[in-house]
Amino acid sequence: MAAPFSLIPMETIFSHRSIRRYLPDAVDDALLQKILEAGTRASNTGNMQVYSIVVTRDAALRRKLWEAHMRQDMVLEAPVVLTFCADVHRFSAWCEMNDATPDYHNFLWLYTASIDAVLAAQNVALEAEANGLGICYLGTTNYAPEEIIDILQLPRGVMPVTTLVMGYPAQTPPLTDRLPLAAVVHDETYQDYTDDTLRVLYARLESSEETKRLLALHGKQKIAQVFTDVRYASDGNRAASAACLKALVRQGFLPG
Amino acid sequence: MAAPFSLIPMETIFSHRSIRRYLPDAVDDALLQKILEAGTRASNTGNMQVYSIVVTRDAALRRKLWEAHMRQDMVLEAPVVLTFCADVHRFSAWCEMNDATPDYHNFLWLYTASIDAVLAAQNVALEAEANGLGICYLGTTNYAPEEIIDILQLPRGVMPVTTLVMGYPAQTPPLTDRLPLAAVVHDETYQDYTDDTLRVLYARLESSEETKRLLALHGKQKIAQVFTDVRYASDGNRAASAACLKALVRQGFLPG
Repeated sequence: MAAPFSLIPMETIFSHRSIRRYLPDAVDDALLQKILEAGTRASNTGNMQVYSIVVTRDAALRRKLWEAHMRQDMVLEAPVVLTFCADVHRFSAWCEMNDATPDYHNFLWLYTASIDAVLAAQNVALEAEANGLGICYLGTTNYAPEEIIDILQLPRGVMPVTTLVMGYPAQTPPLTDRLPLAAVVHDETYQDYTDDTLRVLYARLESSEETKRLLALHGKQKIAQVFTDVRYASDGNRAASAACLKALVRQGFLPG
Repeated sequence: MAAPFSLIPMETIFSHRSIRRYLPDAVDDALLQKILEAGTRASNTGNMQVYSIVVTRDAALRRKLWEAHMRQDMVLEAPVVLTFCADVHRFSAWCEMNDATPDYHNFLWLYTASIDAVLAAQNVALEAEANGLGICYLGTTNYAPEEIIDILQLPRGVMPVTTLVMGYPAQTPPLTDRLPLAAVVHDETYQDYTDDTLRVLYARLESSEETKRLLALHGKQKIAQVFTDVRYASDGNRAASAACLKALVRQGFLPG
């Protein structure tokens, strides 16, 4: 069959590593524009584009965002911080101007608009990398969302979903390992795991040099304990869950 | 500066169109494997890979999914259906085997794992397109999630987030238009919209040929009313929101 698309193999996808150290070089406006355009080419619900991208370059604002992101220094170092938001506010305002009655301040549309925001973010990330820039996603976006809402002045109907820092890399980290593909792919329906299967799938992670380093560093016996006790422990999970739900009420996506 | 990555411009991103008609040709196993590998190269929270991808090719199962996806025929026609799920079940089971105490059945991790699932999905979509395949996202994944949970036998801790149908395109639709970039991009902080700004930003959408066609088809005066009254109307939004929240309770991500 004749393929209707341009077929350029995307080595960029297989070369991705998160960049946490940046050069001070600014990102050219025209390049940034092209990268953001790439974001808007992603699929989105009903072509309604219920997301917004806040581009923060001002040093004082980035310092505030650095506080909100648990003081990860890449927020100060990278010249560009992009906050991807679910946004039903703009679309709803436009509907109201047009004698239409929008009803998108609810959980379905928070979830849908969040998916759209993330699809745009990944296009932005890849287009940036394809142009020699480095990026890192900030999961801390969901830890204290109200701080970000305040700093970026997000109105009701707008929720921060994920953040990218972006700039020219000052490091070339190795590719990180992944679980074997069989760990995340299921044939036809979900194939639940036996203990034996899990042992095989996680064997490489459990025996890696990085694991040995982390066990020594944190004084743990098992790498799973580094996740559950140190990196993503119960107290922090519960506090962030509560903060997310509170922010969703404030922004109008859940009833109070 | 020397760029550490392979720098291949990704025309694929700018050529994306959703494909809704498919040829019967199967997708080669080795190609599908490479495409799924591309998904796993996306950024993810703490390299925990808290997502799963269910690959459904069986015709009888696809017919069940077709019912759950509001009988969109592309679910029957495309040879491959990929359901991307937030999945804390596998990671938690592995932790429990390793004398660690996981606490990831909560809203933070639903949201975080959903973001990871969508990042993987977009890599899969782009890698598929770069190899001559077509894809379409199914927003209906969030309309009746419990039906999908039942069909794919998703255990507690696993939530369907988005779905891709995939196969060789039997159509070449035109690129869809997008809002001007200024509609979705904000400088430094969120810049709220005036009515005048919205009129300018939505002018192209309001006056397009497709809009004229839809207004005539649905007997509406304004295109916004096609969204609020026909495509994404209040009753459906509320039913799907309730269904999502109920599914999140069932899967252990929200308290009952």
